[in-house]
Amino acid sequence: MTTTRERSRTATITKPSDREIHVERTFDASRDRVWRAMTDPKQIAQWWGRGNTLVVERLEVERGGHWRFVEQSHSNVHGFEGRYREVTPLERIVCTFEWDGMPGHVIVETMELHDLGDGRTKLVTTSLFHTAEERDGMLNSGMETGMNESYAALDRLLAKPE
Amino acid sequence: MTTTRERSRTATITKPSDREIHVERTFDASRDRVWRAMTDPKQIAQWWGRGNTLVVERLEVERGGHWRFVEQSHSNVHGFEGRYREVTPLERIVCTFEWDGMPGHVIVETMELHDLGDGRTKLVTTSLFHTAEERDGMLNSGMETGMNESYAALDRLLAKPE
Repeated sequence: MTTTRERSRTATITKPSDREIHVERTFDASRDRVWRAMTDPKQIAQWWGRGNTLVVERLEVERGGHWRFVEQSHSNVHGFEGRYREVTPLERIVCTFEWDGMPGHVIVETMELHDLGDGRTKLVTTSLFHTAEERDGMLNSGMETGMNESYAALDRLLAKPE
Repeated sequence: MTTTRERSRTATITKPSDREIHVERTFDASRDRVWRAMTDPKQIAQWWGRGNTLVVERLEVERGGHWRFVEQSHSNVHGFEGRYREVTPLERIVCTFEWDGMPGHVIVETMELHDLGDGRTKLVTTSLFHTAEERDGMLNSGMETGMNESYAALDRLLAKPE
């Protein structure tokens, strides 16, 4: 039944307020396996860029640490960066997120991993924007498609042995 | 009458919304003189730290550029950093502001310089926080005293020949 589960696997997106986006997505892997895929630079490079080359320039997964990724497709180079506000291993990361194309427009992302048992883990992400306009801009930017592509790539990584 | 003007010179602080702080402060210098004091690393080092040593580690005053200052007193070291969203020379800077002590808590600062004529310039700054709690935390942190000390140091710098 794995195929059926994968086919129906898309992220659930809701809007708890006019400055937030809430996303829930379940993965067929243990919580520690998903945690490593989200915090190990070699593993991040295999899914975050959705098939595009991803250079992890900086990744300091600790309070106050910075991160910076550069995604390279055949036609474009996009940089992303931020800083960790809070890191609770296996459970929770709070960090900022900023795209070079809109410098200084900063999103606060709270990511929590919930162990569902039976080798499944739910990732719950809440993104807080400074303004409703920035939130709506993100929703209209093709974010949902890109995110689902990234998570599908993460599914494929999680299905492989480490 | 210069002495009287200096004695009464404090910043005017208002709260336009529950996530903002608005500050107005007039300086006895031309707009281009104030602009240079705000954007030249050697000049910033002379006033931003209110008498403490200030190391300007990074200062890229352009859209997408980063800044990072480290203030060193006899007992403490405090880092501050951010990124420029918008730079209109002599007129306007929009950048983010983050203190190392609260990493990932990001303020958007909009600074505008208004030429009042007669060799005077008004600096108008609006700070936007992600939450009302962060705004109130800043107001309760001694921000007003520190800011007035910085601006008094800036007054002294502006009174000297460049």
